[in-house]
Amino acid sequence: MYRTHTCGELRASDAGKTVTLAGWVQKARKMGGMVFIDLRDRYGITQLRVEDSTQPELAATASKLGREFVIQATGTVEERQSKNSKIPTGDIEVSLTGITVLNEAQTPPFTIEDESDGGEELRARYRYLDLRRNPLKNAMILRHRMAHEVRNYLDDKGFLEIETPFLIKSTPEGARDFVVPSRMNQGQFYALPQSPQTFKQLLMVAGYDRYFQIVRCFRDEDLRADRQPEFTQIDCEMSFVEQEDVLNLFEGMMRHLFKVVLNVDIPNPMPRMTWYDAMDRYGSDKPDIRFGMTINDITREAHGHDFTVFDSCEYVGAICVPGAAEYTRKQLDELTEWVKRPQVGAKGLVYIKYNEDGTFKSSVDKFFSQEDLADIACVCQADPGDLILVLCGPKRKAQTMLGTLRIEMGNRLGLRDPFNFAPLWVVDFPLLEWDDETSRFYAMHHPFTAPKPEHMEWFYSDKKEDLERVCANAYDFVLNGTELGGGSIRIHEAEVQKRMFEVLGISSEDAEVKFGFIINAFKFGAPPHGGLAFGFDRVCALFGGQETIRDFIAFPKNNMGRDVMLDAPSAIDDTQMEELALRSTVQNG
Amino acid sequence: MYRTHTCGELRASDAGKTVTLAGWVQKARKMGGMVFIDLRDRYGITQLRVEDSTQPELAATASKLGREFVIQATGTVEERQSKNSKIPTGDIEVSLTGITVLNEAQTPPFTIEDESDGGEELRARYRYLDLRRNPLKNAMILRHRMAHEVRNYLDDKGFLEIETPFLIKSTPEGARDFVVPSRMNQGQFYALPQSPQTFKQLLMVAGYDRYFQIVRCFRDEDLRADRQPEFTQIDCEMSFVEQEDVLNLFEGMMRHLFKVVLNVDIPNPMPRMTWYDAMDRYGSDKPDIRFGMTINDITREAHGHDFTVFDSCEYVGAICVPGAAEYTRKQLDELTEWVKRPQVGAKGLVYIKYNEDGTFKSSVDKFFSQEDLADIACVCQADPGDLILVLCGPKRKAQTMLGTLRIEMGNRLGLRDPFNFAPLWVVDFPLLEWDDETSRFYAMHHPFTAPKPEHMEWFYSDKKEDLERVCANAYDFVLNGTELGGGSIRIHEAEVQKRMFEVLGISSEDAEVKFGFIINAFKFGAPPHGGLAFGFDRVCALFGGQETIRDFIAFPKNNMGRDVMLDAPSAIDDTQMEELALRSTVQNG
Repeated sequence: MYRTHTCGELRASDAGKTVTLAGWVQKARKMGGMVFIDLRDRYGITQLRVEDSTQPELAATASKLGREFVIQATGTVEERQSKNSKIPTGDIEVSLTGITVLNEAQTPPFTIEDESDGGEELRARYRYLDLRRNPLKNAMILRHRMAHEVRNYLDDKGFLEIETPFLIKSTPEGARDFVVPSRMNQGQFYALPQSPQTFKQLLMVAGYDRYFQIVRCFRDEDLRADRQPEFTQIDCEMSFVEQEDVLNLFEGMMRHLFKVVLNVDIPNPMPRMTWYDAMDRYGSDKPDIRFGMTINDITREAHGHDFTVFDSCEYVGAICVPGAAEYTRKQLDELTEWVKRPQVGAKGLVYIKYNEDGTFKSSVDKFFSQEDLADIACVCQADPGDLILVLCGPKRKAQTMLGTLRIEMGNRLGLRDPFNFAPLWVVDFPLLEWDDETSRFYAMHHPFTAPKPEHMEWFYSDKKEDLERVCANAYDFVLNGTELGGGSIRIHEAEVQKRMFEVLGISSEDAEVKFGFIINAFKFGAPPHGGLAFGFDRVCALFGGQETIRDFIAFPKNNMGRDVMLDAPSAIDDTQMEELALRSTVQNG
Repeated sequence: MYRTHTCGELRASDAGKTVTLAGWVQKARKMGGMVFIDLRDRYGITQLRVEDSTQPELAATASKLGREFVIQATGTVEERQSKNSKIPTGDIEVSLTGITVLNEAQTPPFTIEDESDGGEELRARYRYLDLRRNPLKNAMILRHRMAHEVRNYLDDKGFLEIETPFLIKSTPEGARDFVVPSRMNQGQFYALPQSPQTFKQLLMVAGYDRYFQIVRCFRDEDLRADRQPEFTQIDCEMSFVEQEDVLNLFEGMMRHLFKVVLNVDIPNPMPRMTWYDAMDRYGSDKPDIRFGMTINDITREAHGHDFTVFDSCEYVGAICVPGAAEYTRKQLDELTEWVKRPQVGAKGLVYIKYNEDGTFKSSVDKFFSQEDLADIACVCQADPGDLILVLCGPKRKAQTMLGTLRIEMGNRLGLRDPFNFAPLWVVDFPLLEWDDETSRFYAMHHPFTAPKPEHMEWFYSDKKEDLERVCANAYDFVLNGTELGGGSIRIHEAEVQKRMFEVLGISSEDAEVKFGFIINAFKFGAPPHGGLAFGFDRVCALFGGQETIRDFIAFPKNNMGRDVMLDAPSAIDDTQMEELALRSTVQNG
């Protein structure tokens, strides 16, 4: 061992001890006839001291140390004269008797500080240096802790972690697969799993009634901001359970994580909201309930005032922004431009100021009297000093735009403290989503999700409107406006599964090709079962108070799916291509 | 919840309770006016009883239940009249008041019993049914337990589990990579990791001084028996450590596993053996030390007796098989044929019987007198009644053949009880292996393994014989003749790494292309570090008393790398090929 202690553990009570530390030189500086070295390792920073006058040789060595040199240093622990209360080792320093340079270091291309001077691209290229910084180190430690506690909790509840394969079969349903050409079976490909969904269901058929896995998954999608082609899931499944059992168990898991990792108590029981309520009141299936400002349906109050914009819309909705009646013309114009951005997609924004004096000033004064506006304000439960923002359109679309505007106003008003945690379950999702473009239904969760038993009649109906109102035994875990996980009770009866494929327009031949083995498996005694999966990267990020997942992944990819540190992907040898019986149709490889 | 209890937990003390169980019908049988059902779940089997006379309807339902039907059954726990001491629930049965068939089942294609009547291929196709059998279930539970205990131990020792990427860069060094074509970077490929070797070293550079991961790895190799294209490693690395620290820590981990999982105490400290001793005495770098029968060098005694076969060989070695002097001519002939198989590769076998009366009978009596044979017997520490088996050839080759013969004799004599655990460390491996065919050195472990400091002079020598005797700070964990893990202290100095590439004949340009990022990383302050990796599948198999890993993997591939349950790999859509800018050069896809 190169050290007797870490750089994070020495305290005043250790004074007098002879110790050996090893680590990286955070900085070295001369001051008043002494050289001070801040030595850093994973556990902290310890100050080392060399006296010029009594140890000229050692001082010479010490003063030649560059940033990030790796050294081993031996000396005596002494209580400091001027203590540093900012670090746990600040009461002591080590008066050195020896230094061994274990490795020199080039000057790093950016500073290894909490706030680095390096740009994102540069830090990505030198990820191993970026990982030395505290914010990333803390993220890695948090992630380890989270995974360990998930495993402890689930092990304690009788779950078995069972590893499922990575080289599986490509299924064209769902997102795009990454594929892996087979050399031993030329012309054929494996696929990397988008999730272990079918395997966990097979494990239920196999009788492993409580399964989980913290597992890498892969999706070859065009990368939106903060998506990664490979990501990690906490994947779970249970047999002989109903929705209530699943919700209770995983609510318990999240409660455990919040408590042991952050010492935060979340509400017990956690709030639940139906998908319909979430859409109506928050314009989102992942509502941020840290703040109010919920959406109000003012269609009835808005219609019939000869304002064609409203009259021609199915739905008119409003949010009430507390204390924002003072917004200037300029601010309102900017907000109008903001909702017209393609990401929001509104045609315009109507505002109603509820002045402190009880009067109203709106952008639709021509059509709405003070009494009309008061009616709207009443629906919105607005108080004097509030600003009412109105959008209209087809119902769900308008609600979604209002939901986006609500989040934006929440940000602007500072209502979205990342360390205020407001989790909830969203339940009762529609089973099916109609797609106008392809003129067919898609499964909102996935094709194995069970319809609610009480909606079975609609499920077997031929009418589109019946099918549209079938709810699923599906649920999402939502935290602070982000969906962290979701799942469902699965179909376990072959007959219901067959109907599901029929509704989705998947022919029995296609179903056989794509899902043959699982349909077949279900014929041999499938238990009732259900489960869910959490996006582990995002769970970690939110627990760390961050919105982006990149810093919670040791070696992430950039927006082009590239690892700029490794320079991957890259061209491969011709012999490799030949062995795989593949030819590239592009030249730029 | 569909049940109040599992099928494994009811005891006599539960008598009188009303319970609901759910599970699979192991069997249902009529007997003396009653129907008995054995209901099975992951936790055990419970006997259910229905009385024909008092419950005719229920009895009718019960008697229609087929094997593997999934049912929910409610009734009262009663102490049995004739108890079954073979199962933990054997003291009770449940007198039923209701049965709900949750799912019917087709008759499975093989019996769900500890010894199934299904062949390997059939069971692989219906893996989810095979997984219902106790041997596989117990293997999965063991594996979960092992992984959990590894994590507990390492977490307790301050290790962080850090996930490394799966989509990385292909490096032509080492085994063959599986590659993944990139759609967003057409003509380019990711590779799946053969191990996280470079990443864990980068993590050391990044300051994470205790890293581990239980992680999937991939190798596209022609599959020898009991190899899988994807396999799981316990991968570990530490900084500021010497070999002794690594050995102690992971010896502790294995000791912990043996104790908590199997309640077995392994020697403390574990034996260590140098690679040279292992080769000389066991003819293997993974010696099985559960039994003796070690190899004796009898070159001196064998040479100079005008027996050209011996005289022309560099080395003559022997093992002494206790109590086998009675072997018949036929048995010895069969053994001679056995050593001549290409897997062993001997040209012939010389035997010396040490008869109970103190005389010797050998196949080389023409050349060796009784005294000569007594000399050999003395070297071999043979006793009357033993059989000495002699092979000769180039030293290492002959030793390897003797090692193979030794294992075979150990098997034949029943000396290899799988539940007798004899672990050891093999240390001081040669750094380099000379390959005559390509006329170059290869790294015995990998190109980042450090030479022993005391061999540095040889390492920088130009002479082949000097380089051949350089030892590495490398070590293997060996159990019962199987290598379960191995690792090394790594090179952390750029200068030494450069020399290593030079010795391996890797040009600096090539090294730059293949390992550029890691060579570069090492310039920014690499700490001294080392680590190791265990083959987790095999660790589990050996703990389970099995030699093959396949039953310890939930969904394994067959010898052709195929998953016969999924039918993977398989052809993919033309559109997928087009998106990847790939064309197959074979038609049989």
